[in-house]
Amino acid sequence: MSNVQVLPLLEPESAAPCCPPLTERPLTAVEAERTAVMFKALGDPVRLRLFSLIASHEGGEACVCDISDVGVSQPTVSHHLKKLREAGLLTSQRRGTWVYYRVAPAVLAAMGQLLTSAAGA
Amino acid sequence: MSNVQVLPLLEPESAAPCCPPLTERPLTAVEAERTAVMFKALGDPVRLRLFSLIASHEGGEACVCDISDVGVSQPTVSHHLKKLREAGLLTSQRRGTWVYYRVAPAVLAAMGQLLTSAAGA
Repeated sequence: MSNVQVLPLLEPESAAPCCPPLTERPLTAVEAERTAVMFKALGDPVRLRLFSLIASHEGGEACVCDISDVGVSQPTVSHHLKKLREAGLLTSQRRGTWVYYRVAPAVLAAMGQLLTSAAGA
Repeated sequence: MSNVQVLPLLEPESAAPCCPPLTERPLTAVEAERTAVMFKALGDPVRLRLFSLIASHEGGEACVCDISDVGVSQPTVSHHLKKLREAGLLTSQRRGTWVYYRVAPAVLAAMGQLLTSAAGA
């Protein structure tokens, strides 16, 4: 019998990919509100570094226990990871002692598409 | 003789595309500092809307004179466009009375690539 507990945490409310390519039409106020939250979450150097640490970590996931050398304390790391999750950019899953974070692929793909399309204008 | 003056404004200092795909390796502190500035610029709903207005405008460029219905005053629009330019996301060119803004394609493509690659992890 395994003593590893799998307790998925709540997913962000609206992790659905947002919005057409930026070249197609202007975003509505509602779309802009929703999408800006994601960009804002990546608009902090420490959060962006943490995000890249998780995205590039073996298996595509990492817990706070895997993260060091970003120059901030572990509680601060946890705080930033929570912010990224709330913005819909990471998903999380508790396994035993630790919460493991993983990049939310659909949301990122949508953000990437939004920008790449704009670049092709 | 034309009375239209073409006076390109200063381009942002470092508009070079940044950084490998997020899945490849963690960003360095310097890379994260540089890239976070761009995400932060898009992390405001009004700026994101203005950005999409320009990206989707006829000819891929727009001046403040083309922009209305975003619910903020013209000086505020100008302020936000300047911020987007300083972050390297827009280029600008003065033509006569107006400054015309255009999406900076290379920078956006790089940001899009950064995210799209991470999504494919």
